[in-house]
Amino acid sequence: MAASTSSTSGSSSGSSSGSSSGYGSASSGAAKVPASFETHPSRYRHWKLNVDGAIARLDMAVREDEPLVPGYPLKLNSYDLGVDIELCDAVQRLRFAHPQVRVVILGSGRDRVFCAGANIHMLAASTHGFKVNFCKYTNETRLAIEDASQKSGQKYLAAVSGPCAGGGYELAMACDEILLIDDGSSTVALPEVPLLGVLPGTGGLTRLLDKRQVRRDRADIFSTLAEGIRGKRAVDWRLVDEIAPRSRFPQAVQARAQKLLSKTGAGPTTNGIELEPLSPQVRDDSIRYRHVELKIERARRMATLTVRAPDAGYAAPDSVEALHAQAAAGQSWALRAFRELDDAILRLRFHEPTVGLIVLRTEGDPAAVVRADAALWALQKDWLAREILLLMARTLRRLDQTSKTLFAVAEPGTCFAGSLLEILLSADRSYVLDDAGAPTQFATSPLNGGALPLLDGRSRLDVRFYGASEKVQAVLEHRAPFDAQTADALGLVTVLADEIDFADTLRLALEERLSLSPDALTGMEQNLRAAACGEGMEQRIFGRLSAWQNWIFIRPNATGERGALSSYGKPERPVFDWTRT
Amino acid sequence: MAASTSSTSGSSSGSSSGSSSGYGSASSGAAKVPASFETHPSRYRHWKLNVDGAIARLDMAVREDEPLVPGYPLKLNSYDLGVDIELCDAVQRLRFAHPQVRVVILGSGRDRVFCAGANIHMLAASTHGFKVNFCKYTNETRLAIEDASQKSGQKYLAAVSGPCAGGGYELAMACDEILLIDDGSSTVALPEVPLLGVLPGTGGLTRLLDKRQVRRDRADIFSTLAEGIRGKRAVDWRLVDEIAPRSRFPQAVQARAQKLLSKTGAGPTTNGIELEPLSPQVRDDSIRYRHVELKIERARRMATLTVRAPDAGYAAPDSVEALHAQAAAGQSWALRAFRELDDAILRLRFHEPTVGLIVLRTEGDPAAVVRADAALWALQKDWLAREILLLMARTLRRLDQTSKTLFAVAEPGTCFAGSLLEILLSADRSYVLDDAGAPTQFATSPLNGGALPLLDGRSRLDVRFYGASEKVQAVLEHRAPFDAQTADALGLVTVLADEIDFADTLRLALEERLSLSPDALTGMEQNLRAAACGEGMEQRIFGRLSAWQNWIFIRPNATGERGALSSYGKPERPVFDWTRT
Repeated sequence: MAASTSSTSGSSSGSSSGSSSGYGSASSGAAKVPASFETHPSRYRHWKLNVDGAIARLDMAVREDEPLVPGYPLKLNSYDLGVDIELCDAVQRLRFAHPQVRVVILGSGRDRVFCAGANIHMLAASTHGFKVNFCKYTNETRLAIEDASQKSGQKYLAAVSGPCAGGGYELAMACDEILLIDDGSSTVALPEVPLLGVLPGTGGLTRLLDKRQVRRDRADIFSTLAEGIRGKRAVDWRLVDEIAPRSRFPQAVQARAQKLLSKTGAGPTTNGIELEPLSPQVRDDSIRYRHVELKIERARRMATLTVRAPDAGYAAPDSVEALHAQAAAGQSWALRAFRELDDAILRLRFHEPTVGLIVLRTEGDPAAVVRADAALWALQKDWLAREILLLMARTLRRLDQTSKTLFAVAEPGTCFAGSLLEILLSADRSYVLDDAGAPTQFATSPLNGGALPLLDGRSRLDVRFYGASEKVQAVLEHRAPFDAQTADALGLVTVLADEIDFADTLRLALEERLSLSPDALTGMEQNLRAAACGEGMEQRIFGRLSAWQNWIFIRPNATGERGALSSYGKPERPVFDWTRT
Repeated sequence: MAASTSSTSGSSSGSSSGSSSGYGSASSGAAKVPASFETHPSRYRHWKLNVDGAIARLDMAVREDEPLVPGYPLKLNSYDLGVDIELCDAVQRLRFAHPQVRVVILGSGRDRVFCAGANIHMLAASTHGFKVNFCKYTNETRLAIEDASQKSGQKYLAAVSGPCAGGGYELAMACDEILLIDDGSSTVALPEVPLLGVLPGTGGLTRLLDKRQVRRDRADIFSTLAEGIRGKRAVDWRLVDEIAPRSRFPQAVQARAQKLLSKTGAGPTTNGIELEPLSPQVRDDSIRYRHVELKIERARRMATLTVRAPDAGYAAPDSVEALHAQAAAGQSWALRAFRELDDAILRLRFHEPTVGLIVLRTEGDPAAVVRADAALWALQKDWLAREILLLMARTLRRLDQTSKTLFAVAEPGTCFAGSLLEILLSADRSYVLDDAGAPTQFATSPLNGGALPLLDGRSRLDVRFYGASEKVQAVLEHRAPFDAQTADALGLVTVLADEIDFADTLRLALEERLSLSPDALTGMEQNLRAAACGEGMEQRIFGRLSAWQNWIFIRPNATGERGALSSYGKPERPVFDWTRT
């Protein structure tokens, strides 16, 4: 899998693995990450995607002998990051390449097993950092399924034709409906607590409550029952929506899919578009995409991520047809730039565990970004315009959830306009050079008004100003490009400094930040980035469930020598320190 | 301090310290806990409480040489659990004994320092479990201040007359308003991240945003600035509400207090009541209060907590006068029983770190509880009735936030009625014996309708049934005592078993629960108990901020040999593993 993706991603020009830099504890985790996060259905190893009109079938058939790195056979449709990268790709491509699809049947391509969840031996052998990053990525993929359902009208039906445990059931819960085979043995289960001493951390505990509304005392029983629950009880407890015997299972799946189909409106009739390979130029300390550039300074433990505005010659599409033609030719700035940004963020997370700070920069003409944004906004009733906006929003949320400090830096030539202004609003701080002679660098576009929301559905401006609509409106009314002092007056600037002070101020701020405990910063940023959000399910997954899971992952009761996760599959029982904390 | 409280709590009949049972890693933490959580203003070591009509003054003057256990002088008004127990007592007594007080000026009794926060050497020397429990208790105390402000109209003004750092500033933020001395040097600060590599975990990061609405990039700067912020900038950033020079500081405090006073309505004119000592009988494996009994089975790592209904002869008060007379005589069942329950929960948390499961039992006549509840509800416009209801609610939330498994067990003779039914609703599971010949054991009272809310303000029934009002109403309409089968049909029972199966079912459930990883259970219960709550500030403190803090507390970057918390005050700089997770 690692070989196959790297050979097709155009990234063969250099190694992108941080492991070569030899950072102590990070190396074993880094060794488990793929060179690229891109793939394509034609190259899937573990999934089969078949589209038939408005219904698609996405079957998991994990190849036991093709883990991302050797050492843990992927038995019983258990998965590792390589399997989830393909799932993420499939969910994305269904939206862009197959917009007519209204129902996705997520099933198993293996006899008598649906999915056994994340591979335990892979987890047990991974570093703490890799486990956390792996869970975050799979959480994002499951949320992308729900985003596709809620925002794009592609409904997911989990056709559970055999045992479905742990991450397998968490994946099923990410679907809109769950149909379980009633064969006297197949169960749904969350055996993490009783078997592994960790949590069902990919949204399991959260979706049981917030999404499926299982009564909490039953959720407690279920989450401690290694063998899971089957048949009528699974329906009664709302763990699944329906059961069907083996003899009628395929028909029941079809009937349920048709019913889902009848409830959703018809999909678009225009053709989908292919998402072309990004083919970045990857060197040891830089990755260069068309609109995005990532520079890594490992010795300083920082990176600089630059996103460029559309080229001077960019013609914003003025019709649905123009947008589709541009996107099909790989020439949609927004689609391409944010796909590149997404890929760069994932590489930073997985390949550069010791990089603690990302300087976020932008370049180009603010007016060009505003034109591109306004065009998408004007065409938002078109499915493709909407998909591009949703992808931009997901990418920015991926940035929000990245556990590295984010400093936005604005100097002459930078361009924090419209959708790129959201990058500054995602940052923990912004450092802005006050240069009276410089061209204006800031602007708002219609997309700053809520089209690219945070996890709780609100805009970054709204959250930044605690819902003070006069402050939000004051920013949004500045459609024409504006300068640093105006940005400061509007409340967008953390530190404004003139030419004499700017370089020193920024250098000192970077040095100081890079000297602080990385754990404390992760915890602090997780709390501050969730500023007064109305906490919905997604916030609870990343802020509450993940925080407890991170804690448990590092406790000896899970990952110590005799901990439950480490002991899994061995004859010895785990040994616990019984102190309750 | 430890000696002084134990000599006054009536608990001299036995040792209540879990350390005597010799549980490995727990012992050093257990050694730091006091025998009792009760105290009285006449015995305060570290606070001075002065009441003058509608204004009270509560001054922190920590005795450096009286830490809870020897080994860490409490310099610069830094605090340990002993200091916070007195604060908790003062906040509670202000509500019950001094209801006429409308404004509490929280100040410092030390020259030129307000409060330096939790004592670092105490924290560095404590076990993980003690640190977590200490933070939870101080969080609860600060929330009790806000509860007094919002629900009882006792407003708090922090008069910050000198440096105010870490937990000191977190305490100030728990007040309604903050007045800071403007002397060119006194600052407010959250130096935890830069100096200690941990979070401001007593609500600091949360209140900066949710309560004081500090812009999040400024909150980021402030939370990494060891020296803090003073003067006008502190006002501009909303860190404090006002500054005043030393020469006018006392007058400014008075002026601000008078202004607060003018905004609140007049307080009650009736006299307050004294909260009498609970004087439980404490033995090695049991604590017996008047209405509450705690039995500890350390070898099984479980405890049984029983709350008894009012005695047969209990006359529920039928007037304000009757209620006041009863409470003044220490004869209010609700006030006494829930104070006892509160004390028992604290002892369980601090003295019994290895007890992982609490069986929650009740005893007595359901009709008596319903009568007592109904009387309080009918008198709710009276300040004392309201205070008793608020205390019951806080106690139940203390139970919700206890990191031990809670199983409610109902057999003939138990009494899950009204306010005691809330105990069952707080439990992770309920085990109910279906005995057709037994008297009825369940009932609802007006208090089940929302008078005893969860942290998000909703009732336990509402949260249990995900807001399905027909299910909530079906329960609430059952005012007359009802039996186990009806309770099951109403959705209150997790496991209903008949006489033949009940004992074995319960025994197996207890054994199974007690065999699971205590960390995984803590994380699981924290997630499931927050079932689909609208997450407000309080939930974010316990679910998000605390979870990240717990994680950070156990990371080597904080508490490892060369971690920042361990290195504090030593000449060597901390050494970090730079992996960002």
